[in-house]
Amino acid sequence: MKAIKDSVHGHVRLGDLAAELVDTPAFQRLRHIKQLSTVRLVYPSANHTRFEHSLGVYHLARSAIDGLGVDDDTAAHVRAAAMLHDVGHGPYGHQTEGIIRRATGRDHDDVGWLLTDADREVCQVLERNGLDPERVASLIDGKGALGPLVSGELDVDRMDYLVRDAHHTGVPYGTVDTGRLVNELRLVDEAGSGAADLVLEEGNVATAESLLVARSLMNAVVYRHHVSRVAGAMLERACERYLDRTETDAEAFRRMADHDLLVELRERIPALGERIERRDLYKRAVWAGIGDVPTGTVDAGRAEERAAEREIADAVGVDRDAVIVDIPSRPTLKESGSTVVVDGVPQRLEDASELVTGLRAAERRRWTLGVYCPEPHVDAVASAARDVLGLRALGRPSA
Amino acid sequence: MKAIKDSVHGHVRLGDLAAELVDTPAFQRLRHIKQLSTVRLVYPSANHTRFEHSLGVYHLARSAIDGLGVDDDTAAHVRAAAMLHDVGHGPYGHQTEGIIRRATGRDHDDVGWLLTDADREVCQVLERNGLDPERVASLIDGKGALGPLVSGELDVDRMDYLVRDAHHTGVPYGTVDTGRLVNELRLVDEAGSGAADLVLEEGNVATAESLLVARSLMNAVVYRHHVSRVAGAMLERACERYLDRTETDAEAFRRMADHDLLVELRERIPALGERIERRDLYKRAVWAGIGDVPTGTVDAGRAEERAAEREIADAVGVDRDAVIVDIPSRPTLKESGSTVVVDGVPQRLEDASELVTGLRAAERRRWTLGVYCPEPHVDAVASAARDVLGLRALGRPSA
Amino acid sequence: MKAIKDSVHGHVRLGDLAAELVDTPAFQRLRHIKQLSTVRLVYPSANHTRFEHSLGVYHLARSAIDGLGVDDDTAAHVRAAAMLHDVGHGPYGHQTEGIIRRATGRDHDDVGWLLTDADREVCQVLERNGLDPERVASLIDGKGALGPLVSGELDVDRMDYLVRDAHHTGVPYGTVDTGRLVNELRLVDEAGSGAADLVLEEGNVATAESLLVARSLMNAVVYRHHVSRVAGAMLERACERYLDRTETDAEAFRRMADHDLLVELRERIPALGERIERRDLYKRAVWAGIGDVPTGTVDAGRAEERAAEREIADAVGVDRDAVIVDIPSRPTLKESGSTVVVDGVPQRLEDASELVTGLRAAERRRWTLGVYCPEPHVDAVASAARDVLGLRALGRPSA
Amino acid sequence: MKAIKDSVHGHVRLGDLAAELVDTPAFQRLRHIKQLSTVRLVYPSANHTRFEHSLGVYHLARSAIDGLGVDDDTAAHVRAAAMLHDVGHGPYGHQTEGIIRRATGRDHDDVGWLLTDADREVCQVLERNGLDPERVASLIDGKGALGPLVSGELDVDRMDYLVRDAHHTGVPYGTVDTGRLVNELRLVDEAGSGAADLVLEEGNVATAESLLVARSLMNAVVYRHHVSRVAGAMLERACERYLDRTETDAEAFRRMADHDLLVELRERIPALGERIERRDLYKRAVWAGIGDVPTGTVDAGRAEERAAEREIADAVGVDRDAVIVDIPSRPTLKESGSTVVVDGVPQRLEDASELVTGLRAAERRRWTLGVYCPEPHVDAVASAARDVLGLRALGRPSA
Repeated sequence: MKAIKDSVHGHVRLGDLAAELVDTPAFQRLRHIKQLSTVRLVYPSANHTRFEHSLGVYHLARSAIDGLGVDDDTAAHVRAAAMLHDVGHGPYGHQTEGIIRRATGRDHDDVGWLLTDADREVCQVLERNGLDPERVASLIDGKGALGPLVSGELDVDRMDYLVRDAHHTGVPYGTVDTGRLVNELRLVDEAGSGAADLVLEEGNVATAESLLVARSLMNAVVYRHHVSRVAGAMLERACERYLDRTETDAEAFRRMADHDLLVELRERIPALGERIERRDLYKRAVWAGIGDVPTGTVDAGRAEERAAEREIADAVGVDRDAVIVDIPSRPTLKESGSTVVVDGVPQRLEDASELVTGLRAAERRRWTLGVYCPEPHVDAVASAARDVLGLRALGRPSA
Repeated sequence: MKAIKDSVHGHVRLGDLAAELVDTPAFQRLRHIKQLSTVRLVYPSANHTRFEHSLGVYHLARSAIDGLGVDDDTAAHVRAAAMLHDVGHGPYGHQTEGIIRRATGRDHDDVGWLLTDADREVCQVLERNGLDPERVASLIDGKGALGPLVSGELDVDRMDYLVRDAHHTGVPYGTVDTGRLVNELRLVDEAGSGAADLVLEEGNVATAESLLVARSLMNAVVYRHHVSRVAGAMLERACERYLDRTETDAEAFRRMADHDLLVELRERIPALGERIERRDLYKRAVWAGIGDVPTGTVDAGRAEERAAEREIADAVGVDRDAVIVDIPSRPTLKESGSTVVVDGVPQRLEDASELVTGLRAAERRRWTLGVYCPEPHVDAVASAARDVLGLRALGRPSA
Repeated sequence: MKAIKDSVHGHVRLGDLAAELVDTPAFQRLRHIKQLSTVRLVYPSANHTRFEHSLGVYHLARSAIDGLGVDDDTAAHVRAAAMLHDVGHGPYGHQTEGIIRRATGRDHDDVGWLLTDADREVCQVLERNGLDPERVASLIDGKGALGPLVSGELDVDRMDYLVRDAHHTGVPYGTVDTGRLVNELRLVDEAGSGAADLVLEEGNVATAESLLVARSLMNAVVYRHHVSRVAGAMLERACERYLDRTETDAEAFRRMADHDLLVELRERIPALGERIERRDLYKRAVWAGIGDVPTGTVDAGRAEERAAEREIADAVGVDRDAVIVDIPSRPTLKESGSTVVVDGVPQRLEDASELVTGLRAAERRRWTLGVYCPEPHVDAVASAARDVLGLRALGRPSA
Repeated sequence: MKAIKDSVHGHVRLGDLAAELVDTPAFQRLRHIKQLSTVRLVYPSANHTRFEHSLGVYHLARSAIDGLGVDDDTAAHVRAAAMLHDVGHGPYGHQTEGIIRRATGRDHDDVGWLLTDADREVCQVLERNGLDPERVASLIDGKGALGPLVSGELDVDRMDYLVRDAHHTGVPYGTVDTGRLVNELRLVDEAGSGAADLVLEEGNVATAESLLVARSLMNAVVYRHHVSRVAGAMLERACERYLDRTETDAEAFRRMADHDLLVELRERIPALGERIERRDLYKRAVWAGIGDVPTGTVDAGRAEERAAEREIADAVGVDRDAVIVDIPSRPTLKESGSTVVVDGVPQRLEDASELVTGLRAAERRRWTLGVYCPEPHVDAVASAARDVLGLRALGRPSA
């Protein structure tokens, strides 16, 4: 069995199918997609890629599936789905997901990519090994009893990325007992139906909570760090302009790797691209908590966000790309719906853990609207943005 | 500067005073007091001692104090207090604290030990180096502006033990960003008073929360693991019998080290001592959550606990030492009172973080009353205990 | 399957037999035998025990055996041998091995202990599970094709202890790629015989070298650190006196745990025992490299060592226990005989690696004779020792 | 003081000058130069960059300099030199060093880059802070008493990269006690001269050896892994063709970042560039140890290497870029000249350590000549290469 050394899991052993999948161009491309896109501008060690992450997810899926007692064919499909779950990502991963969705109607875990001609080689490998690509795609989409293992509230994707992102940023909050989680997963029959549910065995409320807590703390200090958000918003704006101003179609855009995009943006959209490459970022003119933002603004759609930017830019008299309004979607806490056995009865974690309420409130508190612009315009933009967005009077970002 | 290699902090560098303190018998004795007493019966790697923990606390205190801008004399007193904060511990640390308190009226962080003749050598070292033992003792007691750094809600003691206990048990939940915590501490003047408060700098709500969360998860899976609680309760019972049945006075008892106590209990109280040494532990007859226990029982004092044990033992017809009732005190969450700067204003963490409410509820949920006895009597004891303690009907412990 | 959390390997999963063996008194006793005896007086975090080490060796043996393609019965015997390989150790492990050997004629890996009545429970567990205690004992003794996996030049014992000792001391030199070593072991048939040899697969010369190098560096900075050697020599002397002056027979001595011995030595041989407990150690009067020591002295036996001590003590006019002469045996490099496949041919590592010669020379250079005594007598003892031992004129120990 | 979180050293604290230097374009560019170029094709986690490495080197230099007792101005120059030591690197670091040297006559640690207009901003920052760019450049070049700290046989560059490369590849061999090394460095006056030498304090032969050993093992399993060598040779060939076939001048080439080069090679030299991007690498036709290669071939220069390639390609009838001959320079062991104090006398490590001889021999054994080509031509190329290069008959690469 072939083994690949991984900085997080040690040796990841690959079965024959896995080894063939690794060699496809679609999978090799993941070497060139960083896991945390613009986070590396804050945490310079965070250069890990979706390639090693995908191997890690495969590794954890293999361990988990070994304990679930499913047949070999099912196990093979789950392992393949774990391996391939991120192949649909565009350049800079989640950062371009919205753009690609708007342009193509497809998410990164959409099954489409797998069944198209363009990535035919992956399908061929699957079929040559007796696997059904549609079934693999369906697992990636979270369907069926075992879909939640690949894409759900207790999935091996999250287990891997929390640990890996902590390891590579150097931040200690993402530490999750993956060994225990993977070993304590069980398939239990749903009462009165033929279906089965994936649950955590008795005695693991704290284990499940640790996953929520890790994500909440990682959100606060890593994933939503303001520097990463500013850079991410600039990147997204640059990509929109790039799609507007060039011939590149959305599908070709999705197939780019990070290095392609970085070069293209610098060459074609230099006002933003050169700044991103050199980490010469916009500053925060506004940084407002949910209590200072009117409900209508919190729920603003894309079009309203863009309209507000134009209005602010015009009021200040700067180029429209010099103002970015960044309104995150309302906070959620997906993992809270995972199922844990307590006193013999499977319960949703949010019913079994009072911590969930606290974490929800913390997510709400951490929600922040940002308005970014080049440093010289900060005061003028801040003032205009308050009017346009209807913000309560508020001070400048403190740090 | 002398350096000692530590498994957690790397090289701990000792100033001259620290090096002299290390060589005193009172400090050397800490080599023989394990940090986690009976936890090692669950996590066999958890054999670390209060010796290296004390060095770690000294190390963190030194880093913290460097950033606070205090005078050299104050800094020296704080460092000495950090180093010596655990010298008052009895054998098996916290496990014998209640016994010693009841017998001597003194806690492990009582200043008394430092000022008595018996540990004269520590005082001599302090005085020879121009330090005031009473001032050191007062810092250990948490007094003054800098007392909270040594013994308080954001103290270096907790920072060290959470990280160290996680490292040595192998459990990933105690990971706390000590580097950041230590560097973000500030002394701020209290409004309208000459006093100063120790606070965490702006932008550290998540950092402070991580400390609470780490402790909550460590409580759940390490500090209050049922096997450790059973062994701890047996140890405490054995110590009480030992003090009853031998001539040993409480002060001599306090000065014992772990190995002394283990041998003494085996030789003098073999019914319990031999079992502890061989990890042949009592089993749980009852393991009941707070919702199944009458308020009067939750708040039972020592005397009532002992009376209940006698009543249960008599009902079942076994020796009184064969039944142990273990009622923890009501859950608290001390760290929640630490102070964090938010938008320029120092706030108590419990006001700044919604997580605190959730963690309080989790502590309440994890509160559990236990009744332990030798395996053959489990059913009979369970049944008698329910009557005596007024418990609601409940199943057997599940794991 | 039961799992125990280990600080080095994460979760160690125990089969049914292993779980039963863990519960025997003979195995539980290993909780009370520290892995590195007096090394903790230099590296205070090094408090790990032979209990968790034995679990680690079992864990690695299980991985290794899985890849060797042997039958289930053989595998079960190897796993049991790995688990039990250290049960024969006396208190303070290797430190008392010489004393026990001289008093009983038996080594710690002697099969005797396993087949005697006293540890009958281990035998009963083995037999109840269909295993042959003699076969297990023979594997512990390194016999047969798979004996070398348990006790040999590439054994899982060494793989575990190098990594574990590095982890717990905090010293970075013991890091060995156990995952790779364990996976690259193969059984190959010996040419022209029915026997099989345990070898490392092609491409692993560097992997095998890393084991030698790790041990050589750990020898230099950990295992033979002078403070640990002084304390060890004092302990050995104290044990000899203890056996001379008390009724304790050698077999009872062997069954003691660390805490028993520490208390006994303090109470019965206080001149040495109290010093060891308090780390109030003798100092080095002489610390001489092999080039400064006459051949006759290098090869001195026990009796000559003792005679020299008496002569030195008498010359200085101090008690005979106040002088300790510590002459290590000539350096060896056992691992160099392990077998590695190079260009398809199994070769001894010492033939495949030029590093072995260098490491041998380094071991020779690090060989040091020591003479220790209480601080006030250092100069007088140094002077007398030079005459008695025929040392070349040499300076005092430099650090 | 600004702090950046690093995955290896935790928090790296930056002084004002350091923070300004970080913000220069020349330093930000290092975010886009991977530390280990093609090694990531073998160890997929090895994506770390010269940006965080440079911060790490600065961090270690700061610690080292604190213990050396030099004046503040000297210390500031050393810290700046440590920070800037890699700014001269071309894309893919060492991989393009030879090409750039041949094209420009300058090495990556050549002082030239620092004093030219193009990187004027770095000079301006230095001068604005009262530092002399020429003095910084001279330190980077290893000149003066403290030059060896930045670029020498015991330099902080090597200390950082061995630990960092081990951390990111997941290979355990690069572990070096940087804390100890940095703290044990001393400046000692050279006898009879005004000069001073950088040496390791008494008692550190093993510490110094560990650095050599770490590098030797990392060479074997990481730096010279055959997959990385094949990819590196393809990259070098592609770069040569790129400089031949495009207008790009060598200086512009040197200023590229990894992503620029990857895109350029794919677009302009697709025969090689596409393969590198997709990890569709040439295979080894020949892999020959030094004993099988005639002396003349071992010492072949660039021109002869190229001539041999042409001859082989013509013999087989393939394109000239389809054959790559890769002859490493003769093995050296630079660190062996570092100075260690033994018995009070500074000695060269090679005189104090017998290990050096063994490591030299190991380096010689590991020296390997490779000939690479697309898979279909492997047999034909192997056969032709043997004739052309005068190799002894030899088998195919074994793994």
